[in-house]
Parts: sequence; C-alpha cells; structure tokens
Amino acid sequence: MSKTLSASDFRFFETLFHPRSIAVAGVSENVRRPGGAFFQNLIDCGYKGKLYPVNIKGGSFGKLEIFRHVTDIPCPVDLVIVSIPRDGVRELMRDCAAKRVKSVQIFSAGFGELGDKEGKQLEQDILVEAKKGGVRIVGPSSIGIGCPASGMPLAPEGFLGEPGDVAFLCQSGSISLELVQVCTRRGIGLSKAVGTGNSIDLDTTDFLPYLAADDKTKAIALYLEGSRESPLLFRLIEDISKEKPVLLWKGGRSEAGQRVVSSHTASQPSPSPRWKALARSSGAVWVESLYEMTDTLLAFKKVGSFRGEDVAVVSGLANGGGGTGIAAVDTLVAAGLSVPRFSGVVRGELQSLLGRVGSILDNPLDVSQAVRNPDKIEKAMMLAAGEPNIGLILLHENLYTLLRWLDREQLLAMNRRFIEVSRRLKKPLVVILPREMVESQSLELEQELCRNGIAVFPSAERAAKALANVAGYYKRRSRYTLT
Amino acid sequence: MSKTLSASDFRFFETLFHPRSIAVAGVSENVRRPGGAFFQNLIDCGYKGKLYPVNIKGGSFGKLEIFRHVTDIPCPVDLVIVSIPRDGVRELMRDCAAKRVKSVQIFSAGFGELGDKEGKQLEQDILVEAKKGGVRIVGPSSIGIGCPASGMPLAPEGFLGEPGDVAFLCQSGSISLELVQVCTRRGIGLSKAVGTGNSIDLDTTDFLPYLAADDKTKAIALYLEGSRESPLLFRLIEDISKEKPVLLWKGGRSEAGQRVVSSHTASQPSPSPRWKALARSSGAVWVESLYEMTDTLLAFKKVGSFRGEDVAVVSGLANGGGGTGIAAVDTLVAAGLSVPRFSGVVRGELQSLLGRVGSILDNPLDVSQAVRNPDKIEKAMMLAAGEPNIGLILLHENLYTLLRWLDREQLLAMNRRFIEVSRRLKKPLVVILPREMVESQSLELEQELCRNGIAVFPSAERAAKALANVAGYYKRRSRYTLT
Repeated sequence: MSKTLSASDFRFFETLFHPRSIAVAGVSENVRRPGGAFFQNLIDCGYKGKLYPVNIKGGSFGKLEIFRHVTDIPCPVDLVIVSIPRDGVRELMRDCAAKRVKSVQIFSAGFGELGDKEGKQLEQDILVEAKKGGVRIVGPSSIGIGCPASGMPLAPEGFLGEPGDVAFLCQSGSISLELVQVCTRRGIGLSKAVGTGNSIDLDTTDFLPYLAADDKTKAIALYLEGSRESPLLFRLIEDISKEKPVLLWKGGRSEAGQRVVSSHTASQPSPSPRWKALARSSGAVWVESLYEMTDTLLAFKKVGSFRGEDVAVVSGLANGGGGTGIAAVDTLVAAGLSVPRFSGVVRGELQSLLGRVGSILDNPLDVSQAVRNPDKIEKAMMLAAGEPNIGLILLHENLYTLLRWLDREQLLAMNRRFIEVSRRLKKPLVVILPREMVESQSLELEQELCRNGIAVFPSAERAAKALANVAGYYKRRSRYTLT
Repeated sequence: MSKTLSASDFRFFETLFHPRSIAVAGVSENVRRPGGAFFQNLIDCGYKGKLYPVNIKGGSFGKLEIFRHVTDIPCPVDLVIVSIPRDGVRELMRDCAAKRVKSVQIFSAGFGELGDKEGKQLEQDILVEAKKGGVRIVGPSSIGIGCPASGMPLAPEGFLGEPGDVAFLCQSGSISLELVQVCTRRGIGLSKAVGTGNSIDLDTTDFLPYLAADDKTKAIALYLEGSRESPLLFRLIEDISKEKPVLLWKGGRSEAGQRVVSSHTASQPSPSPRWKALARSSGAVWVESLYEMTDTLLAFKKVGSFRGEDVAVVSGLANGGGGTGIAAVDTLVAAGLSVPRFSGVVRGELQSLLGRVGSILDNPLDVSQAVRNPDKIEKAMMLAAGEPNIGLILLHENLYTLLRWLDREQLLAMNRRFIEVSRRLKKPLVVILPREMVESQSLELEQELCRNGIAVFPSAERAAKALANVAGYYKRRSRYTLT
C-alpha cells in the first residue's frame, strides 16, 4: 500500500473499521477466555454485521454452531479476530488467504516481541501466507480495532467508548484501554481506535493517511514506542498537522523504559530527544502522559482555537479566592499563557459591584464577596471576560465549600448562567473542579457542563498544560497558513 | 516573643491551639452569617471548652444569651474569634486587652491588604491596643486557628479535618480550605492549621519554633506569598529540616501572580527565583501546587525514608502491563528515581513462573499473564521486591479492567496479599489507582489500603514527583547528619 491514499486504500480502511462480517477464531463457550469474550463483547456492544465463531475443536456458542475452519463459513468474511495459541496462527492464516478475508487482527502474542529467532520466523511465515491471499494484518500482540460507531470494542475486556471524532493509534494495549476509559469519563468520543501491537504489516504510517482523509476524525492521538519508518512518520505528521492536530506521546523516553520496549512491541527503540525535536518541527503536539494526552484532547474539543493567549481567572467560589487565584495564575504563566491586568475602567466597575473589602479586583478576580448573589457574579464575569484582549475565562469552583452555601439546584442554576456568559461573549469557559470529598456531586456538575460544551479539569495545573498545548498548536498552524 | 522558644512561649502556643475557652464576637442567630457559623461550627465539631457568644447588639443564640462586650463575660477567655465589621475591631481590641484575653483571631478583612493609609492605620491602632493587655493577634483577614484534636475547625465553613501529625501555616484562606479538603480525602491527618492572613503580629516565623518543638507535629507544610523576615524564615527552616520535613509552596511565583499578592495578604512580594534558591539551600522541600504538596505529605507519612532510590515497577493488573509499565518507568526516571534491571537469576525465575509469552520479565514487570492466579502474582512480587537493591515497589492497578475478571471480594483479598508482601519484605508499597469510571470502587480500595499504611496515588506522574521529593529530603538530611 502506498503512503498516499488511493481510493481503494480508503475503501479498504473503511471496511476495516466498518466490516460487514467478523469471524472470531478461538471462541469457546467460556466467555472468561479471550476468544469467547471477544465474541460475546461484539454481541453486547451491538455490532450489526454478521458474526461467525471459529474453533478448530468445533462445539457451539449458545445456539450457534462453531465453525472448525474459516473456510467452512458459507459467506464472505471481512475481518478475522485471531485469539488462538501462536502455533496455530500460520495455518489459520492459510485458511484466511484461501477465504480471501480482507484483514485479520491478531490478538495472540509470542512472536517478534520474544526477541528470539523462532518468534521472528513465525511472523515472517504468517506474512508470507497472508500476502498470498491479499490479507492485511493488524498485530500480532494487538488488542485490535475499535470503532464505537460500528459497535466494535477493543480487547477481550470489551472497551467500547462513545462515538466521537478523536482517533488513536497506540502501540500498547494497556494504554489503549486506559485511553478509552479516561476518554469515556471525560466526554471525549472516539472515531477509530487501534492497538497496533507488533505492526508486522499495517503500521502507524499506514493508518495515518486514512485518518487524515477520514472526515469523521478531527484529532489524532498517538502512543508510540518506536517506528520502523520514522522519517515517513514525521513527514505524515507534518502534513496532517496543517489540517488536524496530531498528539504524540513517546513511550520509552528514559533509558530504563527503552530497555524493555523491544520485549513489549518488538519495536526498534528510538532515541527520545531526537523524536522530541522531530515532533516539534513537524508540528505535532508533544505530550508526556495519559492525562496530558486526554486533557489536551478535551481542550481541543471544547475550547479549540481561542484568540490570543490571554486568560481571565475568576476564583472565590466559594472559599475566598485569593490564594487559589494566585496559584492558578502562577501555573498558567508557567505553562506559557498570559494573565494580563484588567483595564482601569473595568477594575473601577468591579469595585463598585463587589466592594473593596475582602476582594481582589483585578485579574485574577476574587468574587467570594458575592457568593450568594449570582446576579453580581454574572456581572463580574461579564466585566472580566468582556475585556477585548481576553480570549478565555478560567473559573475555579470548589463544590465542597459551595455546597455549604447553596443547594444542588442553586449550584446548577448558577453554572447555567456561567454557560450563558460564555456563549453571549463567544469566549470559551474552562472550569476547574477539585473532586476530593465531593466525588459524586463533582461528577454530576462536570457532566452537565460537558454536555454544554464546557471543558472541566480537576486542577489548574492540568488545565494550564492542556490549554498551552492547544494554543501552541494553533500558533504554529497560523504560521504555516501565512507562509 | 523571641524566635527561640522559651517555656512560656511554648505554653502560650499550647493554649492557642487548645484554648480552655473561646468567645466569638459577631455572633447572631443566623448561622449563614460568618459569626453565627463560627459559633455553631465549634459546637458541631465537638469543641470541649467554654464557649461565649458576643455581639454589641446583644440578643440570644439558641438558649444562650449573647454578651454585649467581651468584658461582660464572667470567666477567663483564652481566645476571641473576631467576625465583626472592621470599624468595630479597635474598640473590641480594647475590651480584649482589658479582659486579659490571651489571643484574638481576626477574621474581619479590610485592613492592610486594601493598600491605603486607612487600612494600615487601623492595623497599627489594633496592635497598640492589643499590646496594652498583652493580647497576641492572628490575622486580620485570617480564617483562623484549626486543631482537630481540640475540635476547632477553620473558617465560617467549619473545615475540621482528621487529627494527625501534619501542621500547616498558610497565608491564604482558600488554599487552607482546599488543603484540609484534600488531606481529609487522602487520609492525611492534621495536628495544627493556621490561616495566617495579614500577620500583623504572629507570623510564620513565630509559629515555626513552636511547631518544631511540638511532638505532635511530624511534618510542616507552608504556603507563603512573602515574608517580612525571610532571612529568619530560611534559618528556621534550615534548623527544623534536620528533624522534620518542611514543605514550601510559594504563591506569586509569576509576575502576574506577584502583582495581586499585596492586595491579598498585604505581603511584600518576594522574588521567586531567590526563594527557590534559599529553599533549596535551607533543606526545604520545594513544591509548586496543592496536589504536589498533599502528594508529598502522603509520601512522607506512608512511605518515609526508603533505601536508595531504586524502584520495582509492577503492572499488568489487569490490562496488559507493557505500555503502562514503560510509561511509569519514564515518569519515575524523569523525576530522578531509578528503575534498574532485575538480576539474571530473578529474570529466570520470573520466566519459569509467568511464562515468556505475553510477559515482560524485567523491571518493569508485567504480571498480566497471571491475573486470575493471585499465588503467582504474589510470588512474582516477592521475586521483584526481594532484589536487595530495590527500596520500593510501585504497583499499577486498574480497577476498571480488574473488576471484569475479579469480584469485589477477590479484589480486596488480592490487595491484602500485596500488603502482606510489603510487610514481610519491609519494603514500602505504593499503589497507582486510576479513578476514572470506577470512582466509588477506587475510593473504597484506596481507603482500605490507606488504613493499612499504603500510599495511593491517582497517577504515576503524581507518585513519582512525591517520591522524588521525599527521597531528596532524606538524601540531604543524611548529608547533614554525616558532616
């Protein structure tokens, strides 16, 4: 497959993520075993295509008879999920080639990542067999292809996620699953998800051109421990970054991490400082943890491009906002954003509105004097956010304190007003909600805000990093556009 | 008061944190107003001493008659909490002096922090009146003195916390309250807590010698925006750090943050790079956020001094541990800790135990192959943690995946085995528990682990920073001890 995407390549990937039929090899009635779990999960997640259980030993799965061979299936098969011991994979691949299966996803492990001759040889043999029938391979040692819109979950654990517009390609199964988990919790929906595993055939550089062309994908997140073709990888990232953000998290940045990379995904370890430099110059968004990745995805989705890098900080809901506001400013500035003074006129108006005593009437703005007066808080926010240079409002709310002064309904009503302010001024609102001691109330409010397009972070530190990543991306992109 | 602590100074502070009687000035029956809230909270939190409500307007609080003046109270008063408009504070102070009250804590705001002549003058007048009767002042603009063992909560919101051995001095009310909130959630108990506010009399440098001498306090956390006496401050920190850790978080590190510091606590802003250098050379533990501060306190409490800086990373519970383990290693190494290879012997034994396929049999160790076999996992952990150079075990568990394979009881039983391994080997165990999607189950397990002395963090990044802070402190201290 060439790295520029032909129409037939595009159709191939469309079928990979929206297969009309799937066979699972290695199914037994025991759904605690991976094969049975894969099969049951497809049913549970609402996969709409045809499903065929396969096992060399035969038997049945519920009312379904299990096919002994893929070649026994009487209809065409788009995708085969392989969950059998590694020694049977070569023969299975022969069947898939004979059956003209379009793709296989190999969950089975014990190949190149073992680092011995036998594992490498097995991979080669499988590739040869697959090529005979034009079968493409995802994996081995891959948790597979996920697509919430198709009802296709990842892994025997059956992680589906919500449909949405973020795609990820991830060399690690465990990180893929944590990504789905955190994305689901934070309201980040997924278009496509791939655990690439050992990538003996289809690799990150094959998927990227498709994800670039896929109009259901608005942002791409990568976790990579290495690449066989890093010059190509960074060329692709550079191209795509002009249109959609590509987030890159490199696993094995430390020597100690690199040491085990090869026994994990059989990747050639890649030196991290070089990757970081390549990422920067290609326009990728460099992230260094799962939380930085998901926070940044959330900021891309809910905040997007905000004008300039000037933030208005509003605190004091409800425990006196001084220190909290100052701490938020410190962390925003450290991340590269700016928190400029308000104009004299606005500072004067804030003083008449809130009174001098117990208030900080600048940026950061402390509204604690008005905690039981939502009208005043709304006006104060309008004044702060109305400053022409301000591109974004960062609001710190502490429910543990707020709920001592307001009941649940008053709290929600107040937050609806904040949403309105943000809409009226067309300036994104970002809310910091510490979760401690108020886990369930915090979750409820977070989901309500999220439904209304507001990004919520558990700390100012995490918000600052994500917002700076997003601002940096759009700054670089505008330079591209100008030159 | 001298900065070296005399016996009478010590007694003074003992009485401040364990007063036999408290009067609250500004009490009305409305417990939504600060005065009434302070009074009601002392009752609700189980304060055992005598309580007197005071209000110039008289009236009653429940069945209690409100005294019009402090001087009307027929018994001695150790502490007066002042929650009246600022213009009445001078006269109230005259009464307190006449009554020979030991200390007052002024919640009222509108003094030096306003930055005008009038506010400064008021502060001076109050000081003069107080000195006439030997009355010491906390504040003004202070949320006060907290001591869970005495049933004394902070602020009108009544934040008490659990009794324990961490003391904090905090120039910000909002940050004090978030500290109590997060500490309570994480199982960090408090010995003493002070919101110092404008510190016109008793300042951080007055409290520190007492906290150094207080055997109920094992660690001290400071949030400071500035200090009138920074040379003394850092001399004190240097002395104390030889015995107990002092954590220092400086508010107003950025220029934008500094700008508002003076209108917050009337502090002289202090340049942050200089403070950071002074903190380092004085042996303080420098932290830069609320979460870094509480994470580090937790690590001091639960982990303490661990031998060397060598960490064994165990992952694979339960979603394949490769990427998660590598990511944890990257973050530990970036924080300055080390994750060395296991010996050939141990790697060999791990292979016989777990099998090669699908495993990473080194440090990090992936135990995912044995997820339903707690015996094997326990043995693997014994092998990894038994390596002589390993000082600490970092275990990554993901309940969202684990609970697909185990029920709640099995999960708790497995974790009890991990606690046993840690005890048997006398090597601290640190557990990473992502909270997303499993908030309540995660909280339950966290509390169970916490009760058994195990530190739990929501991410490897946060654990790594905290552990590196703790390791750095003990390294510096051992150098002190040697020279």
